[in-house]
Amino acid sequence: MSNEACHSGEIVGVSFSLHPMCNQFIDIILGTLEKVDSTKVWMRTDDVTTTIRGKAVHVFDVSKAIFIIAAQTGEHIAYQATYSIGCPGDAAGDVYLAEDDEPANLQAIQNIQQEVSAKFSLYPLGGVHYMDMIYKQIDAMKAYVHVSPAHYSTYLRGSALHIFDGLEKVFNQTVASGSSHTVMTVTISANSPSLKGGSADETMAL
Amino acid sequence: MSNEACHSGEIVGVSFSLHPMCNQFIDIILGTLEKVDSTKVWMRTDDVTTTIRGKAVHVFDVSKAIFIIAAQTGEHIAYQATYSIGCPGDAAGDVYLAEDDEPANLQAIQNIQQEVSAKFSLYPLGGVHYMDMIYKQIDAMKAYVHVSPAHYSTYLRGSALHIFDGLEKVFNQTVASGSSHTVMTVTISANSPSLKGGSADETMAL
Repeated sequence: MSNEACHSGEIVGVSFSLHPMCNQFIDIILGTLEKVDSTKVWMRTDDVTTTIRGKAVHVFDVSKAIFIIAAQTGEHIAYQATYSIGCPGDAAGDVYLAEDDEPANLQAIQNIQQEVSAKFSLYPLGGVHYMDMIYKQIDAMKAYVHVSPAHYSTYLRGSALHIFDGLEKVFNQTVASGSSHTVMTVTISANSPSLKGGSADETMAL
Repeated sequence: MSNEACHSGEIVGVSFSLHPMCNQFIDIILGTLEKVDSTKVWMRTDDVTTTIRGKAVHVFDVSKAIFIIAAQTGEHIAYQATYSIGCPGDAAGDVYLAEDDEPANLQAIQNIQQEVSAKFSLYPLGGVHYMDMIYKQIDAMKAYVHVSPAHYSTYLRGSALHIFDGLEKVFNQTVASGSSHTVMTVTISANSPSLKGGSADETMAL
């Protein structure tokens, strides 16, 4: 990412992993990727993570669709992602900026009901008052889903669509607040056996 | 974590998830936890992550043992972790500081050969010249394992023991360099089918 691109605030990236906890994990991952429209982003997979780069709206649309569609298998699926913008040390290139702002996967997933648990952390780097920015965005997240404190992160419970919408908004809002380099990490869990038959507070979790 | 504890640099924490990609994921997780000695740290699991807090040496020892022992099943195992120290917003308590600095699991794992791929990112928050700190520690990592650049992280390849040793050293060195609040994220993958029959560069990865 060039410095010019950094400061334009246009190029967002995510490095993520999808973990279906079952023997069919390869089929689930490949099947999911086939169902998701990734024509509006740059995407590449290596043996640790998949990286998507493009406009914020499309990066969030594609990553959200990948998680939600994989979770529809009913298997226990974990999703771990680092969203980032403005890293001064990042390499140039490896990006596709679509001409339009229409999310390619919205229609396919907008009616899917999927309850999930998640944890997210926001890291506004290279700036002052970063804790104030974090507190403000944790507060903003309360408009979307159930929020509670956790060590090193904030715990979220609600529908996957609401959680992803909240994450996209707090990320964009942090950038708009003047953070020149912003990182947001997210771990989301769907269909966890920990939650079957009880709340997270009652059961030993996995 | 109280502010006093933050600045003492004594209390380190990690929030992590272990993802065995197979139907027996529950047995693998529970079986691993039984084999690991966690008496020298505070540890609690919810439905998204497990959190360990204590002295740096024991936090790294226990988390390293959990990953390496789980990987000995031969299943495809992914490990995602956020190591942290000095967060001004963290809650007090939930910590155990062992009297000694003897890693409880070192003997059990010190001869285990396990090749892994990994990505790590270092976030020295709240300070100036944070990119210089990051570059210096990426360079230091080259003494331990194979290192190559990736978007939003640094790619590592080598033995699990060497990678964890390197991670522990660069984390501690960042703190020693004066970073008041340090976060390090890590994703490690063992026994990936992407690597069977070829290098990561030759195969489509999962």
